[in-house]
Amino acid sequence: MTVSVDETSTAIDLNAIKSAARTLDGAIVATPFAHSRTLSGMLGCEIWLKFENLQFTASYKERGALNRLASLSEAERQAGVIAMSAGNHAQGVAYHARRLGIPATIVMPEGTPAVKVENTRALGARVILEGATLEDSARMTRVMAREHGLTFIHPFDDPKVIAGQGTVALEMLGVMPDLDDFIVPIGGGGLISGMGIVARALKPGLRVIGVEAGLYPSMYNLVKHASLPIGGDTLAEGIAVKEPGALTRSIIANVVDDIMLVSEAEIERAVALLIGVEKTVVEGAGAAGLAAIIADRHRFRDRRVGLVLCGGNIDARLLASVLTRELARDGRLARLAIDIPDRPGQLAKVAGVIGGAGANIVEVYHQRVFTDLPAKGTELNLVVETRDAGHLTETVTALERAGYRVLLKRSAAEL
Amino acid sequence: MTVSVDETSTAIDLNAIKSAARTLDGAIVATPFAHSRTLSGMLGCEIWLKFENLQFTASYKERGALNRLASLSEAERQAGVIAMSAGNHAQGVAYHARRLGIPATIVMPEGTPAVKVENTRALGARVILEGATLEDSARMTRVMAREHGLTFIHPFDDPKVIAGQGTVALEMLGVMPDLDDFIVPIGGGGLISGMGIVARALKPGLRVIGVEAGLYPSMYNLVKHASLPIGGDTLAEGIAVKEPGALTRSIIANVVDDIMLVSEAEIERAVALLIGVEKTVVEGAGAAGLAAIIADRHRFRDRRVGLVLCGGNIDARLLASVLTRELARDGRLARLAIDIPDRPGQLAKVAGVIGGAGANIVEVYHQRVFTDLPAKGTELNLVVETRDAGHLTETVTALERAGYRVLLKRSAAEL
Repeated sequence: MTVSVDETSTAIDLNAIKSAARTLDGAIVATPFAHSRTLSGMLGCEIWLKFENLQFTASYKERGALNRLASLSEAERQAGVIAMSAGNHAQGVAYHARRLGIPATIVMPEGTPAVKVENTRALGARVILEGATLEDSARMTRVMAREHGLTFIHPFDDPKVIAGQGTVALEMLGVMPDLDDFIVPIGGGGLISGMGIVARALKPGLRVIGVEAGLYPSMYNLVKHASLPIGGDTLAEGIAVKEPGALTRSIIANVVDDIMLVSEAEIERAVALLIGVEKTVVEGAGAAGLAAIIADRHRFRDRRVGLVLCGGNIDARLLASVLTRELARDGRLARLAIDIPDRPGQLAKVAGVIGGAGANIVEVYHQRVFTDLPAKGTELNLVVETRDAGHLTETVTALERAGYRVLLKRSAAEL
Repeated sequence: MTVSVDETSTAIDLNAIKSAARTLDGAIVATPFAHSRTLSGMLGCEIWLKFENLQFTASYKERGALNRLASLSEAERQAGVIAMSAGNHAQGVAYHARRLGIPATIVMPEGTPAVKVENTRALGARVILEGATLEDSARMTRVMAREHGLTFIHPFDDPKVIAGQGTVALEMLGVMPDLDDFIVPIGGGGLISGMGIVARALKPGLRVIGVEAGLYPSMYNLVKHASLPIGGDTLAEGIAVKEPGALTRSIIANVVDDIMLVSEAEIERAVALLIGVEKTVVEGAGAAGLAAIIADRHRFRDRRVGLVLCGGNIDARLLASVLTRELARDGRLARLAIDIPDRPGQLAKVAGVIGGAGANIVEVYHQRVFTDLPAKGTELNLVVETRDAGHLTETVTALERAGYRVLLKRSAAEL
């Protein structure tokens, strides 16, 4: 069964992906694909989650990396491979190269956190810090590959890599053949290319929807002939790709029904929901599929939707910040600005009212200079923790009843 | 095969637990029991994790609750059940009572967060907020049970509940019969009682070790005839029990080899490790088993250890705080106190040195009053984020080379 996509990609068909599945069998984790009753009830569609964050290196990238490594000739294996990545691709290549006894060199930009360098070294790769930016590193990687005769393992724009990633779709349809939709995060486009080829071959009516972070609509621009701006800090750094692949682009144009863009707030919400409901840790890119449903529930209403939680490598400080901002959105953490006379005992009085209302004061600071109050007045800024939004309102009301003017600064962005 | 434990518990033997397993089959999640290669490598023993945090209500408590509910007579079912809990037991009872069409009343102390009340109501239970403390609520629950003819479902001190919890051990030994140790968190003692009976019956040489939070050594005191103080704020609130069961106490005296106590820091470390390595969310009690290995690696060296991740319901703010404190312990977040002359441009200069070293300033405040500097001096307090402990040292050195006196306040407790 061959899907003719276009000239550049005829090498990737369902058979190539089934063959990749045989190559991967036993060497990667057969991750669960499970229905989420709670998320389904919350969002009005039947949500199925593919837990690729539970791969050994916590992302699906192992699949493509291993399928590519397994295709090397004996001479290529002995010479070794090189890849450029500070992220999931680096770990996927390093881990499986060592398993197969292939020397691996990973190039990372200078200033990559030592934790990432150490993690990749611990997987047996030689790590080289080279280049001030990703672009510099990529250039150096090509040079080194040529000079030392190393095979370059591309993170997405390679038929073997794409075939490896496509095995995710085989596993999902194997568990649940009646899916209506795939929702798949797009960075370079390797994962959705492979999955889309499987969908077209096995279930032509299945809707394949890609998701990009709103700040990085690079594939969206290409496929939709748009020119939205690209760049900025996104939680979904794993899919923050400025230049998607040429091969993936042409496949996506043929096998993907639509590309959605999700906001940072939707990505954050999705990460927090997966922690709270599913007790599972995903990175921003891994939450993009759920973010797409949050962004447009109507579009998925009552459909059986398969999402790929494509990675779980999120920085602890980012995760802590996502959880805290979510509390602010839920009204459980709020900043209050309260005008008080600058006299002894005022803080105690305010604290007494707040404590009496059952709320908890987390942070306190005074604002004496930049306030529109008379010189003897001061603005007391508090961060308070409440049980829920209703309790927050009660707390503010209690302060107002005690005679204070209270300004509620509640949004996460202001915290 | 009957384990004669003592008079009060002869009803619980391996057959009772096997019978519970048949009752539970298909009605609870057959949670994974999986080897963790990374944690094993880090801690020097073979660590197997039982993911009871992936039950529908995110804890093993469903097992005992369901086994007890299934044992009710038709008349008792129609009259309904009552339980007292603001936590996992409440959700376990509510969820399975609804499944079985049994009316459930859950009593929670006044002031229970609305989120917990709503979660339990959403599972179909009638929730009553009654009593200022847990003790008051417990008393009211007994009164209501009598007055309305409701069956009280005890969270641990009940043979059917204990038999239900014991099924966890059957599943673990079914997957991996060659375990050397069980490490099991102790709150009221129901889980370890059931698991210990299974261990003694099937594998008498298996070492059964209980774990309590160091702040709540209640079972430890009873079994070891000690009198350590009990009380305080613990991250492991799920096992913060002041009065363990009478029945569980007598079983534990017979089937448990030892009880270990773990510190709050060890519990925090374990929660953070499970997030970072396993990508799984556990509450403090759920991490207690891993904390025990962290507390005494030597004791488990090279052994095959089965841990129960008994629950996943952790408050988002607590989880964020655990992650942040862990960064401080790792030297990735630090507080610096820097003496500067109180003149224009000083902050810019300091910020320039820190930025030049590649570190990130997260928080800034000045300390003008409480400092031992001359009146024209001021203490600048900064929270800075660095890549790792080595990078933090580099950053401090850069500041000192620029002529500043820097005090590094690094411990998590000081952040």
